This record gives sequence, structure tokens and C-alpha cells, in this order.
Amino acid sequence: MNENMLLTNEAARHLYFDFASKMPIIDYHCHISPAEIAEDKRFDNIAQAWLGGDHYKWRQMRVCGVDERYITGDASDKEKFLAFAEIMPRLIGNPIYTWCALELKRFFGIDEPLSPETAEDIWTKTGEILKTLSVRQMITMSGVKAICTTDDPTDSLEYHRIIRSSGFETKVLPAFRPDKAIAIDKAGFTDYIKKLGNISSFADLVSTLTARLDFFIENGCVAADCGMDYVPFAEYTEDECDAILRDALNGKAVTKEQGDKYKTALLIALCSAFSERHIVCEIHCGVTRNINSRMFASIGADTGFDVIGASSIVGIIPLLNKLDSMGKLPKTIIYSLDPRDNERLLSICGAFTGKGTMAKVQQGSAWWFSDTRRGMENQIKAYSEFSALGTFVGMLTDSRSFLSYTRHEYFRRVLCNYIGTLIENGEYVEDTHTGEMIADICYNNAEKFFGLDK
Amino acid sequence: MNENMLLTNEAARHLYFDFASKMPIIDYHCHISPAEIAEDKRFDNIAQAWLGGDHYKWRQMRVCGVDERYITGDASDKEKFLAFAEIMPRLIGNPIYTWCALELKRFFGIDEPLSPETAEDIWTKTGEILKTLSVRQMITMSGVKAICTTDDPTDSLEYHRIIRSSGFETKVLPAFRPDKAIAIDKAGFTDYIKKLGNISSFADLVSTLTARLDFFIENGCVAADCGMDYVPFAEYTEDECDAILRDALNGKAVTKEQGDKYKTALLIALCSAFSERHIVCEIHCGVTRNINSRMFASIGADTGFDVIGASSIVGIIPLLNKLDSMGKLPKTIIYSLDPRDNERLLSICGAFTGKGTMAKVQQGSAWWFSDTRRGMENQIKAYSEFSALGTFVGMLTDSRSFLSYTRHEYFRRVLCNYIGTLIENGEYVEDTHTGEMIADICYNNAEKFFGLDK
Amino acid sequence: MNENMLLTNEAARHLYFDFASKMPIIDYHCHISPAEIAEDKRFDNIAQAWLGGDHYKWRQMRVCGVDERYITGDASDKEKFLAFAEIMPRLIGNPIYTWCALELKRFFGIDEPLSPETAEDIWTKTGEILKTLSVRQMITMSGVKAICTTDDPTDSLEYHRIIRSSGFETKVLPAFRPDKAIAIDKAGFTDYIKKLGNISSFADLVSTLTARLDFFIENGCVAADCGMDYVPFAEYTEDECDAILRDALNGKAVTKEQGDKYKTALLIALCSAFSERHIVCEIHCGVTRNINSRMFASIGADTGFDVIGASSIVGIIPLLNKLDSMGKLPKTIIYSLDPRDNERLLSICGAFTGKGTMAKVQQGSAWWFSDTRRGMENQIKAYSEFSALGTFVGMLTDSRSFLSYTRHEYFRRVLCNYIGTLIENGEYVEDTHTGEMIADICYNNAEKFFGLDK
Repeated sequence: MNENMLLTNEAARHLYFDFASKMPIIDYHCHISPAEIAEDKRFDNIAQAWLGGDHYKWRQMRVCGVDERYITGDASDKEKFLAFAEIMPRLIGNPIYTWCALELKRFFGIDEPLSPETAEDIWTKTGEILKTLSVRQMITMSGVKAICTTDDPTDSLEYHRIIRSSGFETKVLPAFRPDKAIAIDKAGFTDYIKKLGNISSFADLVSTLTARLDFFIENGCVAADCGMDYVPFAEYTEDECDAILRDALNGKAVTKEQGDKYKTALLIALCSAFSERHIVCEIHCGVTRNINSRMFASIGADTGFDVIGASSIVGIIPLLNKLDSMGKLPKTIIYSLDPRDNERLLSICGAFTGKGTMAKVQQGSAWWFSDTRRGMENQIKAYSEFSALGTFVGMLTDSRSFLSYTRHEYFRRVLCNYIGTLIENGEYVEDTHTGEMIADICYNNAEKFFGLDK
Repeated sequence: MNENMLLTNEAARHLYFDFASKMPIIDYHCHISPAEIAEDKRFDNIAQAWLGGDHYKWRQMRVCGVDERYITGDASDKEKFLAFAEIMPRLIGNPIYTWCALELKRFFGIDEPLSPETAEDIWTKTGEILKTLSVRQMITMSGVKAICTTDDPTDSLEYHRIIRSSGFETKVLPAFRPDKAIAIDKAGFTDYIKKLGNISSFADLVSTLTARLDFFIENGCVAADCGMDYVPFAEYTEDECDAILRDALNGKAVTKEQGDKYKTALLIALCSAFSERHIVCEIHCGVTRNINSRMFASIGADTGFDVIGASSIVGIIPLLNKLDSMGKLPKTIIYSLDPRDNERLLSICGAFTGKGTMAKVQQGSAWWFSDTRRGMENQIKAYSEFSALGTFVGMLTDSRSFLSYTRHEYFRRVLCNYIGTLIENGEYVEDTHTGEMIADICYNNAEKFFGLDK
Repeated sequence: MNENMLLTNEAARHLYFDFASKMPIIDYHCHISPAEIAEDKRFDNIAQAWLGGDHYKWRQMRVCGVDERYITGDASDKEKFLAFAEIMPRLIGNPIYTWCALELKRFFGIDEPLSPETAEDIWTKTGEILKTLSVRQMITMSGVKAICTTDDPTDSLEYHRIIRSSGFETKVLPAFRPDKAIAIDKAGFTDYIKKLGNISSFADLVSTLTARLDFFIENGCVAADCGMDYVPFAEYTEDECDAILRDALNGKAVTKEQGDKYKTALLIALCSAFSERHIVCEIHCGVTRNINSRMFASIGADTGFDVIGASSIVGIIPLLNKLDSMGKLPKTIIYSLDPRDNERLLSICGAFTGKGTMAKVQQGSAWWFSDTRRGMENQIKAYSEFSALGTFVGMLTDSRSFLSYTRHEYFRRVLCNYIGTLIENGEYVEDTHTGEMIADICYNNAEKFFGLDK
């Protein structure tokens, strides 16, 4: 781990060390467990912290031909860790290589990269440190001011209340994720709707969800998140939606066309509620999930078998336009899993703006598969060219791991290297605003956008 | 503004300063007003020159949350300028930042970048200079040998004649843009056809347009331009087209399928006419227009609410093939707004060639949203790899502003930096042809392609 | 030709000269003629070696406006060579420029680039050397250990047997290419099926092809290759396929839907056979062929009029999933002609893995139009970020020319430059595994993947 990693020129180093590295973190979208923060969990060993639920790493182990026993099977934690160390030398250029190096450095003070030769030593050293390093300490030492978790509307939010009442100095806020209510075409929909409450009409559904949203807001919620394979849009009437919902609840199959009507209507209703309550709406789309049936049958979802989907932003123009026409467009951040969408998506975002809000609709940071140096660079460059970079709310981890706050460091190095290179190339002249803008992208913009400055 | 801007190595600087910077300009497609050249207009202030009709800048102001009053509203010129200066620090990496810096340097001798701090000074200095700097002087000091404006077939071309008879040394030539006759599915079509003349059949339409084309050619026209959301193709008969046209003129709605037949037929007829008359045909496609209904209702078209469309070059293969099969393929330059099309489009262009003409069908320079350093670099690199870079007709402004000739400088720097870097990396050996080729791309190729060397 | 070509830093040069350049070559997919190796052909002159069948060069000559007479017409070899030399200065940044330079250096010891000025000299020098330089010598001096040619299932493989019995130290192995049996929608299908044997059912067809595959394997075959415009997928029954095949053999037109059923069924059957026999399956897709009807009528297929197709990997997910579910997924390498597919394709490949095999399904090296520095860089970078670079089987020529083994050198320089740059940027720390991994990608991985280490 080289302190100048990714900072290829003097201007970049200056911007990173003098501005970016000094800012705290707002992790405005992630998948860490509030229960584990509430109990201030400790991990037995680095395998649990690194390999417990990280399908990014599982995927690479499988690509390298590792037996599933050492990935999600019954091998011991140490065996799994050694199997992971074995593949590290093949991961040149993969973000996992860099993330591991950064995490070893920042949390454990280890400089040498993980490899078959260093694995034994790293196992021992990290194990020793993990005895006393709890998840809250990981958060605190990373300088995290606020975290938005991802929570189902039915969640009791009890852990969020426990955390708040414990006096933990980092804000841990729930985020409202109504995906299961939207996914009328997926298994489990009917059961889920029953779990939501006594719902017999589309209007019931909207009012129930809105009530849950208000409950979330009482508990600090500032963001919602909608995850969809693709962004749908279809003209609909409320009567149609009523009929479609009733059919689904009665076990009738819903056609693609009907599903799109229902989803559009619900998105419009929810986004209107977000807009009225000044809640930021994040949209994640462009995924085709569980493409390996054999592995899905064997180990289920979220295990490394999701891929970039095709043509996922088809409905985004009419959806945003309708909300804007209604005066109900919320602040929105859109993530497409397909890096090819950068330019088109950014051109669309720029057509929906709001007085007094910077980049009211904006493209989110490079996501998932694209959360790599090149992926980030391409997204940042495209953002700067198609939009105004100084309006960007910057990085989030989207992670299930408490060690991954170093991804903010990674992002900031990429950002400063880009600006530094523009300066080096004579395309941009540093002035008093430059450091300000770096600080804005690293922290201040997100603080304002999510209303956390109040 | 750094004299070595974008020129990151010695070879690049040599190529730029010894060859590229010495060439004059042919601006073979733009949207400046011939009337303003005819009257040799002067601007009252920099706001009028910069912000009058520039929806690129409006867009960024909106993205930064600026109130519409300071964009297209009733604020004063100076208020608008100051609001624009306010957002400049957020535009790092955006071409507007670099364009402004280049324009301030080349036309006003100002070195410092525009910012809230420098705005007052720049307002005063530019205002002083604009008192005597007319649009013809802007053109002349930029070394522009020829300009092709964009003109409707119904245009009288009176201003072009006034300019010519005035002895202005830059050729200001009309270009034939029959978009309104093609857009059978857009509002205003019927009125437009009536304005064209007494048209009762498809054959009438073609002969009327061809007569107008001949009138344009008498007035110096060397280029036509067709702007379309997407490139259509459908098999048709003339009888069908007759019926479709008649229906449209009688106020009947035209289906997508009918519209495609009509458009294909008209494109084939017009391109044949271009081919027979050695007129270059430019095709601009890939735009979805006016996606924000609220703003369209409020301030109309061409105000910053157009975006990259999807799948716009679908018909390009059969269209080019049909024209080639008929022996009626004109010299053609194709621009897609979607930068993802670069490679596919270039591979298609290379399949339609003509003895004695370099790159008879070629991809145009990075356009609109992609008219950025990275967009230009990607287009130039792709062109060099998929086609023969030395055949490229190079840059155009496509601009509404008389100050934007500096975009040619920007392009030339990007071009020389690419070639210089190839030399530095040992991929290419400079020889006596290198400077020649640079000069060809900057000027000579366009001069030959458009027949302006005669 | 600069010895440090493409190696822009010290780490890159070290990796290339100390590791990559020392490895032999496995050219696991190409189109050279086994007959010419069998007879150990010599070329009369450089035009025959370079311009005989190379539609990459033809294409660029046409783009530069060269008369077809000097491309595929009746001009003399020397006239054609001089016409080619004439366009060289326009090919800056095109791989042909670099390939020519590398081939002149490695096979003929010539350092100066081809240009109109050097053409006469190069004609003479290369002509002298070609008098004694046979194709086997070209192969041997390039360090090629094994070659997989591309052969029709009906091929007698006599030349492969002649080569083997001649004691030539390079393995020249047939590869099984059943395209004509798959292409039920193309002209010549019925005649081809008759040539295959007495086939009256779909089962007959599969067993006949499988028997031919076994014959190929007896003759050393380790790879199959399926070339398709797009990857189809449709649910089918064997009865349906029987009926569709019978219809086609009886001269009835086959619909797109029927064709997809038949093709899917045959691909599933063939891939199962490949899997059972441990044969690697290569899939080439994403091409739209012969888009210029006039030139196709005049000079036929494979002459430079094929282009990047649209949406070619549509069926790849269900196809791979079905094979995986059946336990019949062969080792597979997928090439899409569209460079935009890199990321999506890599994400899909990573969902289909196999214990003990590295990257069981992997994306192939940048192909055809993308076989450029930038194309290779983008593919290598994407591979490293979306998959594990150390599992990659690396480069192949896919060429019709015996001089093109230098493309492996080109690839290795690009690869080492990428890794070297990661080291320079502090993103990766060189250790004992680095050189090993370079050697693996250059040679060892292909040797293992194709079972040539046994």
C-alpha cells in the first residue's frame, strides 16, 4: 500500500492530502446490519469480516475454479481465508485487490498485500486486532458522520432506536426500500402485501406504505431506495391498478403489461410522497438476477449470480417527466448497473432540475460491477462533461461490510487524480474554489442533498 | 489559459504549433445567423454574446439550481452574466469551462478564468472590447475561410447574397436543411408543405425541393443537412408515399410505419439529388427532443431539454446500401448523438466507399453533448482504428455563437495530443507525411470533400 | 519500430522483456490454410503475403478511395503493393500501421515504416528474403508451439495428417466449425446437409456431426468454433426440430422463430458433445455480414463488408444456463464483435464457473475490428475488473496470414503496459507471482485450458 496510490501527479496529491482526505464520510446507501451496530458486534476472524456475505469475493473465487466448499460451503473460516489468499495474485487490476490492501492498511496497519505467502501472518495479525475492534470502532475510526441503512417498510426500526438511544455519535438512519411492494411479478408478493397490513385496494396500499414512510421519517429516514430490474413506464388508471392488485392477491398471474402499469402507478405515488416529505429517492436498475438456476436452487439469491441487464432505463424519461409535470419530482439519484448508460442517463438527468437544488436529479456513483477505478473514472469524467461536477453527491459504499469505508478513500483518490490531471494538462486552473469543490463532492453536497445539515 | 493546454508531450506541441495552429478554418456546419453577418452585428455585452441563445450554458445553470429568471427570464444581462459566473467553479472538466477560457483569451486577451471574483472585471473588459468587435471581425480574426450556415429550403437566401456582394472575404454559404419536409409526424408539417408550394403528390414534393436545392446551389450551397431522431428505413412504393402524403395534408394521422415509408422515400430522393449535384449530405441523429413537457410548454424547443436517444442508427445500413446500389450515394457525414455508436457506425461507414473520394461515408466529429475532450478523443481514436484517420474532414462548430471558432483550436489540440502520444509511445514514427496529414484533417480534407478547392 | 513500443514505463518494460517476450505461442484460433503448411508454401512477393486475402487492408484501401482494380482487381502484385504503400501515411493509429511495422521488423529486419518513399526498397528487400522464407519457417521463428486451424466438419483433415507425419515440430490441429450446419436460414444449407451424409432427422444430424467431431478429435482437435450473427435461444422440442429440419431440406422457408428453435437445439446438442469430450467451445457473434449488396454481388463474402451487429448476445444467458443445468457446459470462450459488450458479457461469464477450471466461461480477446491497442486495453482492463485477469487465456491471431504472429507481441506489450502502469500508480505491488501471471496469460493458461499440457 503506497500512500500516493492513484495520485499520479503533484496537483492530485495536493488536492487529496490537503482537502479530500480531511473530510468526514456520509455513507448514504449501504446494506450493513443495524442489529450488528446495535450489539456492537466483534468478528472472530478476518474470514468472517471479509468473506461472510461478500459475493464480490465469492464470485472471483469461483472464477478461479475454487471448490464451492471453500466459498459458501462447510470448510472452516481459516480454510476459506487461505483459499481466498490463494487467488489474490490473479486479481491484478480487480478492485478486490485494492480494497483488501486498503482495508489491511487502514484497519490493521498491514502493508504487505495478501498472497499465499503472507496469508498465515495476516490471519494471525488481523485475528489479534479483531479481538478488540468492534463494528462501532470501525465506523468511528473511518470518520463516518452518518449512515443510511436499507430497510423494508415493515421493519420495526427497533435497532435504529437502540443505536440512537445508546449515544453512538454516528447517525444511523433507516432508508425506506419498498421493492417487495413494487415487485408484483415476483414470488412472495402476496405474502408480503399481507404482511404489510389489511390491504384491499391500490389506495389502501399507497396509504399503508405512506404511513410506514412517515414512521421511518420519525425515526430519522432521509432516503428511499427503489431497486428494479428496469425502470418501467406505462399509462394507467387507478381502477386498472386496483384490478391488477386484486388479481395478484387472488393468485392470478400478472402480465408484463399489467405489471408495468401497477409498478408505474406505485412509483408515481411513492415518489410523490418522497417529494412532499423532501426524501431523496435512489433508483437502482439494470440488473438481471439469479441467472444460474442450478446455483440459485442450491444457495439462493445475492450469492454472486446477478449480471448487468439490457436496456434498463427505458421508462426513465416519461417517469421523470410525469413527476415533474405533477410538481412532485423528488430529489433523485439514479444508478444503472450498465456502465454504457453513463452518457445517456446524464443527459436525461440534466433535463429535470429544480431552483435552489444542485443536480436535483443526478446520476449516482459507479455501482457494483463498475465500482472500480476505471468505472469511477468514467462516471466522474462523464458527470463532469455532461453535468456540473461540483454538484455531485459523490461516493457511497453500497456494502455489507464494516471495513469497506476505505472505498471512500479510493473514490477520493480517483476524483483528485482526475482534477489534478486536468490541472497538469492546463485544462483547468486551480483557484480558491478548487478545494471547496473537492470538499463539496466528498461531503458537503451529500450533507445538503439529504438534509443532514439541519 | 495555458499555451500548452492539452498538449502533454513534446511531439504534440510540435505538431500543434508547427502545423495545426497555422491552418485556416472551414466551418462546414453551424447555426449562426446570416442576417447578423449581413448587418455585421455588434453585441452590447458579453452576456448577449455568450448567453443569448446558448442552451449548453442554460442547462448547466439549471443543473446548479439557478432560478430560470436568470437563465431565460427577465433578469438583466448583467444579472444573468453574474449568475453564470457563480456556477463556473462547479464546471471543472466541462467543455464550457474550457470554451470560456479560450474565448476570453483569443477574443479579449483575458488570461484569468471566469469566477465570481473575476466576473465584474471581465464584464467591464469584454464590454469595452465588444464596442468595436463586430461579428465579421470575430470571423476574420479566427481565420475562417468558409462557413456553411443551416437554412430552410424556403429561405430566400437574401442575406447570403448581401454578404457575398459586400465583398466579405469569408465565404458564407447556405446549407440545405429539409427537416421540416421530412418530419411528417411533427406538428406544423401541413403548414410547412403549403409554404413550400402547391404540392399535391409525392413527385411534386420532390421536384419542388429539388428546385429549391438548385436555387441553393446557385447561391453557393455545397452541403445539405438532415436532422432526425433516428435513421428510418422501410420498403415503400411511390404510390404508397403519395397516399401517405395526401392523408397527412388532409389532416389524417400518420402511423409510425407510414411515416417511416414516407421518410425513407424522401431521403432516398433527396440523397439521390445530392449525389447527382455533388452536394455533401450530413445526417444528424440520435436525439430525443423536448423531454421536459413543463419546460417545453413554458419556453419551447432548443432550450436545453433534448437528450441522447436510443438506437438511432437502425436504418442506416439499408439506407446506405440502397443508395449505393442505385449508384446514388452522396458523400455523407453521419453524426449520432450517442457516443456508444462510434465503433458500430465507423464499421458501417467503411463498407460504403467510392473510388477517388476519401472516406465517402464518414463519421462526423464528436457532436453536441460529446463535443468534449474525452468525446473528441474517443471519436478520433475510434476513427483512427476503424477507418483511416488521414481521411477525416475534422472539426465543425455546430454553434450559434460567433465566438466558438476556438472549438477548432480545442479539437486541434486534442488531435495533436493523440498523434503526439502515439509518437511518444513508439507506436508511430513521424515522417514527412505527418504534418501534411495534420493539415489535411484540420483543413485540406474538408476543402476537398466539400468541393471548396475549386 | 521502437523496441520500447507501447511500454511506457520501467515496470512495463521489465515485465515484457523478462517474462512475456520469452514465452512461446499457442495460436488457438486462426484461419490459415493447413494445405499451405503441408506444402510449406513460399510467397513470390510481399503483396501475396500481405494483400492476398487480407480484407482488413482492402477495407482501408477502399476508405482511402483506391480503385478496386488495385485491391481485388487485375492490377499486378507490385501495383497493388504500391497502392497500399500510398495509403500508409493516412493510417496513423490504425493497427495495420503497427502490424506492418512489426512484421517488417520481425520477419525482414526492416526498421523504416512503409510509405510511398520506402515502398520500392521494401518491395525489393522483402522479395529477396521471401525467396527462402517458407510458411513453416515463419511459424517456427515466431515460437509457435501449437496452431488450431478452422475446419468444416466435412473436411478430410488430410493436410493435418500430412503435417503431423512430416515431423513439423509445431502442432497443427484441426478445429471443428459446424457453422454451415447451424445456419438453417442461409443459402446452401440443404446442399451442405446432403454433403454431410444421409440425414433424415434431427437425431441423424446430431449423430453425424458427433461422429465427425470424434474423427476430428482422433486427429488432434481440442477446440470447436461456432460463428453466429447473434446468439439465439428459444425453447424447443426434438419433434419441432425434426419438422423444421425436414421442411428446410424440402425447400420450405424457415421462419426466424423456427430457425431459433433449430439453432438452439443444435447448439445445445453440440455443446453437450464438446463438454463430454473436454473440447473448448469458442463462440464468435455480433456480426452483420455483406451489408454492401453491390460489392457482394461483385466479389462475394469475406471481402471487407461485414460490420458490428446490434444486440448479439441476447440468448447467451439462457443458453449457458441450460447447459449448466444439464451438467453439460463446455469450457467456453465468447467473442462479441461489439466492444460495448465487454462489461455485460464479462458479468455473465462470471456466473458460470467450474470447480478446478479457471474461468470456465470467459470472454475472448478483443476481436477483429477491436483488435487494436485501445480495443485490447479495454478488454484487458474490463477482464481484470469484472473477472480475474490471471485466468485469461490471452491472445490468438484469428488471422489468414502467416506473418501475423507478431500480434501476440502487440498483445503482450499492451498487457505488460497495463500491469506496469498499475504498479507505477501504486495500485498493485509486484511480487513473485507477477511474472508467473504474465507467463500464464501469454501461454500457460491456454495450454491448460485447451488440454495441450498433456
